[in-house]
Amino acid sequence: MTRPPYVSIHIRSSQPNGRRAGSRDIVDSIAGEIEAGRLAQGLRLPPVRVLEHQLGISKNTVQAAYDELVARGMLESREREGVFVAETSAADTDFVPIGACVPELHPARVDRPEPIAHDIIQLSAVFIDPDLLPIDKLNECFRSVLGTPGLKPFYDAQGYRPLRELIAKRLGARGMEAGADDIIITTGSQQGIDIVTRALKHKHIATENPVYSYAKALFESYGAQVTGLPLSPFESVNLDGWAKTLSAQRPSLLYTITSFQNPTGHSYSTYELVQLLELSQHLKFALLEDDWGSDMLSGSEYRPTLRALGGPNVLYLNSFTKKLLPSLRLGFLVGNEQTRDTLVAHKRMSTLANTSITEVALHEFLDRGYYDTHLRKVQAALDARYHAALEAMRDILPDDVRFSFPGGGPTLWLELPKSIDLARLRASMLRKGVRIENSNAHFFGQPHLHGFRVGFAFLPEQTLRTALSRLAETIHELRP
Amino acid sequence: MTRPPYVSIHIRSSQPNGRRAGSRDIVDSIAGEIEAGRLAQGLRLPPVRVLEHQLGISKNTVQAAYDELVARGMLESREREGVFVAETSAADTDFVPIGACVPELHPARVDRPEPIAHDIIQLSAVFIDPDLLPIDKLNECFRSVLGTPGLKPFYDAQGYRPLRELIAKRLGARGMEAGADDIIITTGSQQGIDIVTRALKHKHIATENPVYSYAKALFESYGAQVTGLPLSPFESVNLDGWAKTLSAQRPSLLYTITSFQNPTGHSYSTYELVQLLELSQHLKFALLEDDWGSDMLSGSEYRPTLRALGGPNVLYLNSFTKKLLPSLRLGFLVGNEQTRDTLVAHKRMSTLANTSITEVALHEFLDRGYYDTHLRKVQAALDARYHAALEAMRDILPDDVRFSFPGGGPTLWLELPKSIDLARLRASMLRKGVRIENSNAHFFGQPHLHGFRVGFAFLPEQTLRTALSRLAETIHELRP
Repeated sequence: MTRPPYVSIHIRSSQPNGRRAGSRDIVDSIAGEIEAGRLAQGLRLPPVRVLEHQLGISKNTVQAAYDELVARGMLESREREGVFVAETSAADTDFVPIGACVPELHPARVDRPEPIAHDIIQLSAVFIDPDLLPIDKLNECFRSVLGTPGLKPFYDAQGYRPLRELIAKRLGARGMEAGADDIIITTGSQQGIDIVTRALKHKHIATENPVYSYAKALFESYGAQVTGLPLSPFESVNLDGWAKTLSAQRPSLLYTITSFQNPTGHSYSTYELVQLLELSQHLKFALLEDDWGSDMLSGSEYRPTLRALGGPNVLYLNSFTKKLLPSLRLGFLVGNEQTRDTLVAHKRMSTLANTSITEVALHEFLDRGYYDTHLRKVQAALDARYHAALEAMRDILPDDVRFSFPGGGPTLWLELPKSIDLARLRASMLRKGVRIENSNAHFFGQPHLHGFRVGFAFLPEQTLRTALSRLAETIHELRP
Repeated sequence: MTRPPYVSIHIRSSQPNGRRAGSRDIVDSIAGEIEAGRLAQGLRLPPVRVLEHQLGISKNTVQAAYDELVARGMLESREREGVFVAETSAADTDFVPIGACVPELHPARVDRPEPIAHDIIQLSAVFIDPDLLPIDKLNECFRSVLGTPGLKPFYDAQGYRPLRELIAKRLGARGMEAGADDIIITTGSQQGIDIVTRALKHKHIATENPVYSYAKALFESYGAQVTGLPLSPFESVNLDGWAKTLSAQRPSLLYTITSFQNPTGHSYSTYELVQLLELSQHLKFALLEDDWGSDMLSGSEYRPTLRALGGPNVLYLNSFTKKLLPSLRLGFLVGNEQTRDTLVAHKRMSTLANTSITEVALHEFLDRGYYDTHLRKVQAALDARYHAALEAMRDILPDDVRFSFPGGGPTLWLELPKSIDLARLRASMLRKGVRIENSNAHFFGQPHLHGFRVGFAFLPEQTLRTALSRLAETIHELRP
C-alpha cells in the first residue's frame, strides 16, 4: 500500500528572532490553517520526522503538538498511514487537481527536420559523410581526458580557457587578431548567432537572400527587421544594388556567410569583402562573419577572411560541429575588447555555459594536432567528391540544368529550368527514395532562384550518381 | 619565406549553361576585374591548381590563360611566389585592412561571477559541495558509453530519446503526467527558462521578488515587462496581495521556484500552490514551475509539485546540474501536446541541440540506478549539513540575526539587523577570506529583506563555523 503524499505547510515560530519553534507554535500554525480553510479534510500532514528535521527541534516536541491536535479532534492518526486532517473538523476545500492555464506561445518558423533515415538518400544534406569524420580519434581524446584531468565540477562560462588559447593561436596564424579573452565557446554556430542577435541593441539585420534558414528564423523570432540582399551562385555580388538597399534600410548588422554560403555555395571574392567593409564604415553597420566554410577549402594559403581584412570589430563565428562531429555541438564567437564581456554575459543568460567535458576533449584533440591532420584529410576527400560531383552532373544531368562552382566545401547549387515544378519534383523524388530540401525557407518572399542545394560531401560517389540518375529521370517525367 | 595569401575572384563561364569555363573565360574575367579597378596592383592571384580544382577544368587551360595575361602585361609571374597583378597595369585600389564598424550591443544586467577560488570561503554558494557529487560513477558511465555505443555523429534536437523516456517514468512516479514526447532536454535550467521566454507570445512575466537573478536579467533582456511579487522566507505567501497585483497587472506567465526558492530558500505550502493554480485559471496566466529543489528533500513521500496539482498545462523545469555535476549542464523542460513542438523549435533556434554524448552518459547513469542511490546519499548529507548549520547559527550568531527554516536543500536566508551596512559587511568579510553574495541583483528595486543566502550544502561544517565566527565578529565591529 502506498501512502498518499503529504502536504507542505508553514510553521511559524513565536520567538522574537524566530529561531526555534515550540510545540505551541506547531499547534497554533496547524489549527490556524484548518480554521482558515487552508487545510482541507482528509489531507495528510507531514510526518513527525519531517517537521522535526525542518525546524531543527526534537521529535517529542512535534509529537506533543500532533497529540494535542488529535485530542482536539482537528487531526486524526491512522495506523501505518500517518496523520490526517479530521474529516469533521475542516472545510471541504477543493484540493482536487485543477488545470492551469495553457501558455500562449509564438510559433517558431522552422520545420521539424526530417530524421536522417538510412534508406533514404539525402541529396541536400549540409553535413559531411560521417565516414570521413575522426570519430575514433575523438573518442580517444574523450577517454584520455576522463583519465586526466577527469570530470571537473565547475566550468568557465566563456569556455575552457586552454581551448580558447589554442583557437586564438589558430586565428592568429590566419591573420586574425584575437586573444583567448576575445573568444567565447558556443553550442555550435547557432548559439553564436543567437548571442549576437540577443545582444544587438537595434535589431535590424541585413543578410543574404537566400540564407541559412535557421538564422533567418532566429532573427525573425526576436522581432528583428530583416533585410534580404539578393545573392546568386551564378553572379558576382550586385554591390551597387546592395549599397542602395543598405543605404535606404540602414541595418545595424550584416550577417554574412563568407565561404560556401548556405544554401548557395557562393564564396565572396576578396574585392567583394573589401567593398562590404567600406559599406560597413560608410553606412555604420556592424559585421557578423559566419565562417563555417573556409576550413573545408584545400590549400594552405588561406584567402583572407572578412575578420582578417576588417580587423577585430568584425564579429567572427566558426564551428567544429560540421567538420569534426555534428553531435559535438561546439563552435566559437570572436569579439574584441569592446564587445566580449557583453557577449559573454548574454551567453550566460542563454545557457550559463556548455558541458565542459566536451570542451576539454576538443582541446586535447587540437593540442595533439589531430584537427590539422583531419582537416587535410577531409579537404582531400571533399576535393575528390567535388570533382566526382562535377563529372557526374556533366554526365548525367540534362543540358538545361545549371550548377555552381564553389571550388570545394560540402554543397553546390543546382538550378533547374523554370518549367519544372519543384514541389512535384520533391514529392516524386521522395517516392524514389531521394530527399531534396525545400529551399523556400531560405528565401525572403518569392525565391529568385529555382533549384536546391546538393550535398556532395555527404554522399559517396556511387550514391550521388544514383540520386542524380533518378533526378534526371524525374526531370524528364515532369517536363511539360 | 611565406607567400602572401591569394585573393579570391569569380570566373564566369560564357557557355549557355555555364557548366565549363574555358581559357577565354578566365582571361576575360580577370582582365575585366583589373580594368574595373577591382583587382589592385600587387595582389596575388589564385594558384593554377586552385582554379583548376574550382572550375573542374585542366591545368593547361588555366596556365594558358595566365600566360596570356602575363604576355598582355596585366599579370606578372614571380618565381616561387605566384602570379600577381602587374604593378603598372592596375589602379592602386586600397586593399589595406579597413576597420569595420563597432557593433552596438545591449549591456546585459548580470555581473561576471567571481571565480570559485579555493582560498576564499564561499558563504552564499548555491552549489552542493563537489565532494558529495558522484564524479567517479559519472566518469564510469562516460567511459562505458564511449565503448558502446560510442560517439554518434548525429543528435536528436529534443534530446536523446531513451533519456527522455527514463525522465518521463520518473515524473510519472511523482504524479506528473508526461510522456517522452513532452520532454525537452536543455542546457541546464537556464536554457529552459530562455526557451519559454523566447517562445512566450506576450512577454509579461510575474515572479517572486527576490528571485534568481539570472532569470530576472533574462526576462529583462527580452524587453519583457516583469512584475515582482514580494516573498519573505519568514512569512506565508501574501496571497491576497499577490492576487491584487496579478489582477491589476495581468501577466501572461508566472515563473516560480516552488521548492527552496532561490535566493530565499522558501518552499511553497500545498495550499499556496493550489491558490496559485486557482489564480492561474481565474486570471489566465500560464505557470512555469522551476523545480530545481524538491529532489534535494529527504523522504520518499514527495509533496505534490505545481505540475502534479495543476496538470500538463503547467510548464515544468528541472535540472541535473546542481545535484549531479554543475559542469554537466543538463536539465529538462516539460510541456504538453499543445506546447512541446513550439518549445522544441525555439530550442533549435537557440542551440539546435546539446552535445549528445553527455545525454547518453546521463541516460546510462539513470538507467543503472545510480541517480536514485546518489539522491538518497545527497539528501542524507544535506540533512546533516542543514542540522549542523542550524546548530552553528544558534551557537555563533548574535540574537538579533534571524534565519529561515527551509527544511533542507542547499541554502537558507540570513536576515541581519537593519543597522548593519551590508556593503561594508561584504567588503570586511572578503578581507577576512569569506565571500558573501550581493543580494541586490535578486530584487526588484529596493530590497525588502536585509540579508543574504547562506549555502550550507557547499561548506563542510568546520568551514561553515569558521565563516560564521568571522561573520559574528564583523557584525560586532560594524554595530553603530
